[in-house]
Amino acid sequence: MKLAISKKRFQMRIEAVREKLQENTLEGMVIFSPKSIFYLCGFGHIATERPIAMFVPVAGEPSLFIPMLEVENVRIKVPWITDVRTYYEYPQGSALLTGEFKHPMKLFAEFLQNKGFASKALGADRAGAAATWGYIGPNLKEVLPDAKITLLKDEIMQLRIIKDPEEIALIRESAKWGNLAHTFLQEFTEPGESEIEITVRASYEATRAMLRTLGPDFEMMESGLPASAGFRGQVGAGSALPHALGKNIKIRKGDVLVTGAGARIGGYNSELERTMIVGVPSEKQKKYFEIMLNSQDAALETFKPGIKCSEVDKAANRVFKEAGCSEYMRHHTGHGLGMEGHEPPFLDIGSTVTIRPGMVFSCEPGIYIPEFAGFRHSDTVLITEDGSERITYYPRDLESMTIL
Amino acid sequence: MKLAISKKRFQMRIEAVREKLQENTLEGMVIFSPKSIFYLCGFGHIATERPIAMFVPVAGEPSLFIPMLEVENVRIKVPWITDVRTYYEYPQGSALLTGEFKHPMKLFAEFLQNKGFASKALGADRAGAAATWGYIGPNLKEVLPDAKITLLKDEIMQLRIIKDPEEIALIRESAKWGNLAHTFLQEFTEPGESEIEITVRASYEATRAMLRTLGPDFEMMESGLPASAGFRGQVGAGSALPHALGKNIKIRKGDVLVTGAGARIGGYNSELERTMIVGVPSEKQKKYFEIMLNSQDAALETFKPGIKCSEVDKAANRVFKEAGCSEYMRHHTGHGLGMEGHEPPFLDIGSTVTIRPGMVFSCEPGIYIPEFAGFRHSDTVLITEDGSERITYYPRDLESMTIL
Repeated sequence: MKLAISKKRFQMRIEAVREKLQENTLEGMVIFSPKSIFYLCGFGHIATERPIAMFVPVAGEPSLFIPMLEVENVRIKVPWITDVRTYYEYPQGSALLTGEFKHPMKLFAEFLQNKGFASKALGADRAGAAATWGYIGPNLKEVLPDAKITLLKDEIMQLRIIKDPEEIALIRESAKWGNLAHTFLQEFTEPGESEIEITVRASYEATRAMLRTLGPDFEMMESGLPASAGFRGQVGAGSALPHALGKNIKIRKGDVLVTGAGARIGGYNSELERTMIVGVPSEKQKKYFEIMLNSQDAALETFKPGIKCSEVDKAANRVFKEAGCSEYMRHHTGHGLGMEGHEPPFLDIGSTVTIRPGMVFSCEPGIYIPEFAGFRHSDTVLITEDGSERITYYPRDLESMTIL
Repeated sequence: MKLAISKKRFQMRIEAVREKLQENTLEGMVIFSPKSIFYLCGFGHIATERPIAMFVPVAGEPSLFIPMLEVENVRIKVPWITDVRTYYEYPQGSALLTGEFKHPMKLFAEFLQNKGFASKALGADRAGAAATWGYIGPNLKEVLPDAKITLLKDEIMQLRIIKDPEEIALIRESAKWGNLAHTFLQEFTEPGESEIEITVRASYEATRAMLRTLGPDFEMMESGLPASAGFRGQVGAGSALPHALGKNIKIRKGDVLVTGAGARIGGYNSELERTMIVGVPSEKQKKYFEIMLNSQDAALETFKPGIKCSEVDKAANRVFKEAGCSEYMRHHTGHGLGMEGHEPPFLDIGSTVTIRPGMVFSCEPGIYIPEFAGFRHSDTVLITEDGSERITYYPRDLESMTIL
C-alpha cells in the first residue's frame, strides 16, 4: 500500500484552488498555513519562526518560498515544484547571500513583484506568515501595498473537510495501528504501574510492530510518535478533566481511565479513545459508563449525509439530559479530523454545516463528574453515500473495557 | 526539588506586565498566546480551536476566559485566579447554558464590558485569539469597537527572554534527563537497527528512569514525551537535511547521524544535539566534524553579556568561511529557548539584540553537504554575569561520538 498522497491528487487540489481563484476573480493565492501547504503539495516540514509560503497563480505553475534549511527537503519531497525561492534566515532575510538585511516577508513581496503580481488582485489564507515561536513580521498587505488582497481564511479548509479516497485509505491504515497501540495499552495496564510508563511502552511496542510491518515505505510527515496510545493524566479523578495532562501517577484498583490512541500515516491520523475501569466496576461507574455508551450510540446512529452537524450533537446531548447528566457535560460531540488534531466542521449544537459524504469525524460525547471520574469513548466515523461507517473498531462494551 | 514555577514567581511576572501597562498608559492587557498565559500563571493546557485569554488589569486581580472543558483544570492548577469566565464551546459559545448562540469572542467582549473595560485603552499580545485547528473568529477590535487597542506583540516575549532562577533550575533539570536519553540513544545505536525504533526505545527508557527518580511530583505542562532522544530522519545522507523528518531506515556502518535530546520539566526544555559516526570515521567525515566542532568552539567562546547576538553568529560563520564551507551553511548559530522549541532572540548576523545575563541559547552552528552528510552539535548555553555556562554536558569530541 502506498503510504502517501499521490502527485496526481496534489495537482487536483491545486486545480481546486485555481477554481476558487476564478470564482473570486483573483490572479493568485498565497498560502501561509503549514498544513494547507502540505495539503496542496505534500511539503511536510517542522514549522518554526521562519516564514514559509506557497503561491498558486490562477494560470501557471505553483511556487514555494522557503528558508534555506528546507531547500533539500523540498527538492526531495516536492521535486515537481521547480519554482522555489529561498532566503537565508529569519530575522535577517538574505544577508548571508547579499550582505543586505531584509525581512523575509519583504523578500517574499519582491518575489511576487518579479513574477508580476505586485499590483494584482490576490487571495491569502491568512493576513501574514503563520510562522510561530516568537516570529514578528509585517502582513502581506504591508509589503505589497499595491496589491488588492482578499482574505480567504476558510476556502482551503472547505476543500480539506471532504476527504478523498487516498486520504480515507490513510486514515483507515492509521486506525489499524491505533487499534494495536490501544491493545498494548490495555494489556500493560495493571494496578501499581505508572500511567506515563504504560503510555510510552505501549507507544514503543506499537510503533515497532507498525514499522516492521510497513517497511521502508513508511515516512513521517511531521514530528511526533508514529503510533501511540496513552492516558494523558486521565486516570482516576483525573479522568474527570477532558483535557488533563500527564502525571506520574500509578494506576489503582477502582480507577476509571480515559485513553487516546492513533498513528500518523502519510500525514493523516485517526482518533480512538476508550473509557476503561480497573477492577470490578461499581454501580456508579456502571451507570455513567452506560449513559455515555447510549449517548455515543445515539450519535453514531444519527450520522448521515444531508443532516446538519448540530443534529448529531443534539442526539448525543438528549441522552445526557434525559439521564440527568447535563451538569456533567463539558464539550460537544466531536470534530472533523484528518491532518490535524481537530478540524472543522464541529459536531456542535451551534453548527449549521451540512454533513456530506467524505467527511470524517470523531464521535466522542462525554460526561465528567468532578472529583469522581470522566466517561468518554471516541471513534472515527466516515460519512458514506448513504450513512456512515465507524473506521475505528476497538470494542466499546463495559465487559471488554474492564481490566480484571 | 520543586518541579514547577512558584506562585510567587507568577505574581512577579504579572507585576512586570502591569509595569508595561503603566509605561504605555494602558488600563489592561489581553493575552491570547497559550505559552504567554502559561508563563504568567502556570495554566498549561492543550491549545485547540477554542479561544482562551487571560486579562491583566493595571490594578486588581487577573482573570481567565476559558472553555468549559478546562474549568477543573484551572481550578486545580491555578486556584489563586478566582475570576474565571467560562463559555460552553466553540463555535457556538454559550448556547448550552442560555439557549443563545454567540461566538466566544463576543462573550469575551461582554466579559470585559461587564468589568468596565469596553471603552478603555487596552493592550493585546495578538490581534485576536491564538486558537488553532481551523478556528475562525473576529479580532478583539471588532468585538470591542469602543476600546483603544494597542498591539504589544513583543512585550511579554521581552520578559520571557531573560530566564529567572526558577526557570534556570528547571532547564538544568531538563538537561540531566536529556543527557540520559542521549546516553541510551548512543548505546542502542547499532548497524541494522531502525532509526525510529532506537528513538522510541531510548525515549521510553529515559522517561522510565526519569519518572522513577522524580516521583509523584512530576507533572506534564503540555502533551508530548517527558524525556526523549532521537534522529528524526537525520541518518546517513538524511543528516544533510537540518530539519529532516523520521524515516523507517536502518542504521548502516559509515553513516553520519545527527541527534536531538531533551526533557520537559515544569514546562521547560533544554536542547542537546550531537553528530555521531557509525564505524571508523573517513577522512572526509573527520574533516567536516572538526570544522563543525571548531565553529561551535568559536561560538561558545564568544558568548558574554554586553555583545550583540550577531557577534556569536559571526564567530561561528567565520570558521566555516575560512574552511571553505560557506556553501554548506543552511541556518544561523542558534536561538533562545525555554518553554518553546525556538524563542527569540536569535543568534543571527542580522540581530542587534544585546546578550544579557539570564538569556538561554542553543549553540548549534552546522554544515550540510548535500547527498553526503550534515554536521551539527547543539548545546544549551546560559549567559551568566561575566560570561556563559554550557548547561548540557554530553561529550562533544570525535572519539566519544564514534560508534564502533
